[in-house]
Amino acid sequence: MPSPLRLGLAGLGTVGIGVVKIVQRHADLIAARAGRPVVITAVSARDKTKKRDADLSGYAWEVDPVALAKRDDVDVFVEVMGGSEGAAKDATEAAIASGKDVVTANKALLAHYGQSLAEAAEAKGRVIRFEAAVAGGIPVIKALTEGLAANQMRRVMGVMNGTCNYILTRMQNAGLPYDVVFEEARQLGYLEADPNLDVGGIDAGHKLSLLAAIAFGTRVSFDNVELEGIGNVSIDDIRMADDMGYHIKLLGVAQMTGRGLEQRMTPCLVPADSPLGQLQGGTNMVVLEGDSVGQIVLRGPGAGEGPTASAVMGDVIDIARGFRMPTFGRPATGLVAATPAKSATPAPYYLRMTLLDKPGALAKVATCLGDAGISIDQMRQINQPGEDDHAVVLIVTHKAAPADIAHALGAIPATGVLQGKAVAIRIEAV
Amino acid sequence: MPSPLRLGLAGLGTVGIGVVKIVQRHADLIAARAGRPVVITAVSARDKTKKRDADLSGYAWEVDPVALAKRDDVDVFVEVMGGSEGAAKDATEAAIASGKDVVTANKALLAHYGQSLAEAAEAKGRVIRFEAAVAGGIPVIKALTEGLAANQMRRVMGVMNGTCNYILTRMQNAGLPYDVVFEEARQLGYLEADPNLDVGGIDAGHKLSLLAAIAFGTRVSFDNVELEGIGNVSIDDIRMADDMGYHIKLLGVAQMTGRGLEQRMTPCLVPADSPLGQLQGGTNMVVLEGDSVGQIVLRGPGAGEGPTASAVMGDVIDIARGFRMPTFGRPATGLVAATPAKSATPAPYYLRMTLLDKPGALAKVATCLGDAGISIDQMRQINQPGEDDHAVVLIVTHKAAPADIAHALGAIPATGVLQGKAVAIRIEAV
Repeated sequence: MPSPLRLGLAGLGTVGIGVVKIVQRHADLIAARAGRPVVITAVSARDKTKKRDADLSGYAWEVDPVALAKRDDVDVFVEVMGGSEGAAKDATEAAIASGKDVVTANKALLAHYGQSLAEAAEAKGRVIRFEAAVAGGIPVIKALTEGLAANQMRRVMGVMNGTCNYILTRMQNAGLPYDVVFEEARQLGYLEADPNLDVGGIDAGHKLSLLAAIAFGTRVSFDNVELEGIGNVSIDDIRMADDMGYHIKLLGVAQMTGRGLEQRMTPCLVPADSPLGQLQGGTNMVVLEGDSVGQIVLRGPGAGEGPTASAVMGDVIDIARGFRMPTFGRPATGLVAATPAKSATPAPYYLRMTLLDKPGALAKVATCLGDAGISIDQMRQINQPGEDDHAVVLIVTHKAAPADIAHALGAIPATGVLQGKAVAIRIEAV
Repeated sequence: MPSPLRLGLAGLGTVGIGVVKIVQRHADLIAARAGRPVVITAVSARDKTKKRDADLSGYAWEVDPVALAKRDDVDVFVEVMGGSEGAAKDATEAAIASGKDVVTANKALLAHYGQSLAEAAEAKGRVIRFEAAVAGGIPVIKALTEGLAANQMRRVMGVMNGTCNYILTRMQNAGLPYDVVFEEARQLGYLEADPNLDVGGIDAGHKLSLLAAIAFGTRVSFDNVELEGIGNVSIDDIRMADDMGYHIKLLGVAQMTGRGLEQRMTPCLVPADSPLGQLQGGTNMVVLEGDSVGQIVLRGPGAGEGPTASAVMGDVIDIARGFRMPTFGRPATGLVAATPAKSATPAPYYLRMTLLDKPGALAKVATCLGDAGISIDQMRQINQPGEDDHAVVLIVTHKAAPADIAHALGAIPATGVLQGKAVAIRIEAV
């Protein structure tokens, strides 16, 4: 039997303990599949005394993950601590510098430092693998980087933050407003310590930027992801969209256009009966579109101990098998800096606005849309009982450029018939 | 730049021409991703004069695929001829014997000779890859063998014959009987030369047997797949199942039980609103369930030039990158001969029977079910206008063992109230 592959595991939270359990439970299965045993030699976490749901007594303990990363008895540095700065970054850099391969679940780190880390690893002949960083247990990095490697990718889309999808589907199913469900999610432990990472779309944006880099051969460019969180999605919009046959999802879309790379992570309407529209709770879905393959849809658990540890260990077994390739599927030095393109791909839009009940109010709004070159597909007026002085107007436009929508929305207030603020949500073809 | 990887392409039908197109169109992209150029040096097909939709002038031509397989200027033998015997088998064996890696789309060949081919390849240090053999463009072999390699797999399921799914969804959507839609499918060119390969479930059974071998570490055992085609699925059952919230699919299920390996490819009812239930036309779907990852669902085109060639070229790029592993994800000599288990996993069943309109007819049927230990979840009686002497009875049972269902169905004719034959279709939890 060949020599074992030795893991140094940094981080003993949910995912780290999941990794320990798999390594212990499936030692024989993994050895058979990997062609050699996979063992943990050392672990790292701040508090050694904390009660954890696994027997760690056989492993050396390092309080400092940088020390772990440099150990001679570690072949692969497994980073499941999280955080884009500080210890995770220092330790990952140290691991590469001392000639270790890296398996990481850290999307934030790669979204910010993926290029420099990949260049450093490739200069050292080391690999960085990050299946667990995107869409939990779904082997989407593998599908995109390897399975679809013969395709010119056209578009990559996904619902990749389970917490946001939990909140949106819970709002819809229970008819509860955002604030109430947000608080529920916090109490269930579904939110990051900084909830804005989830509900602000940042975590999902990190993931999208990694998929885009692989798909289009571009440097990771998280700063150019158009980000809009779910904090402004109202229960009214969820209900009204539903009535019109749509569900609201925090949807990421990356596509290469003639003007450059579009990346957006924003609330979108998608058809209620589409696979994305039907996605409930914490489940993730990624859609990969290539010129030869057409459309591939992958669905699975986006987080949690088992699924995330499964993804980490899939990467570890690839390394044990000797699979080696550049971090983003082609040499990092050859990745180009994509021209960021502000979203210009036309789409239908859902508009909701409250109009004062004045003669000609609707005509004024329609004129603003028409002046911006936007034509109307559907319109509904909803008069609430007891609210005679205003009415809610719902509009679904034909395909319109985002800039034209913004232009029209900018012009409507001057009509004097708008109460409050108009809401516009893109309807994505999926 | 490292030396090119040289392909010998056997078969210039739809898939072969698709491979040629990708190699020619994406030479730069593939070289960037694979780390080396990928070129075709020689091709093989019987008729050189046939008009084909690609420029083949740069390639050596072999009429005999065995000669192609032995050429010194070929590194990888790409077999897209099809057929489990004759030329495909001879040429694949010759390729391995002369030290080539093999990429094949040939499920029939592997379902029958996978074990001996894998052993021969591994003895020679060669790889056989077959992503294109299962579920067309969906990278499911990769997901199962690599991405989920750290999982003890629990169950693998799938709709993996696009022609059958086309026929079933077309029957449902257009309300047409099987024979009419079968003839349509034939005229559209959707059927194999021997249609029984499709509608008899054989092709899909081949695919299931390959997934089961990887999932459970067992030798490919196609002969033990319980096969039932779609030829007996009636438009009546499709309509009545639909009324009760189910769609009928040709569904493969492989699972390891305490009694041994269950493999079946049979028409099943699945909930109409489940991802499998909603699958339309030629699209394939595979469901992979592992102990850590939970459930992963993969959906995509199951056939066609682009998707199948995409899968072939994904395998080629893996080989170019130096990814090497045993054919079924662990050494072929270590695969165990699974004990085949006749399906015994209990499930609810849909039963349809026509009963003579005699007093106590229904009670007699219910007694047969009760005597077999089967309890009834739902029952409906449908009296057709103008047909007063008999009625159609639909029953959905609670979970029952297949043997108990067979026992009850065997007892019902003796009651003297059954007209024709009772239909029983398993309802699979998905």
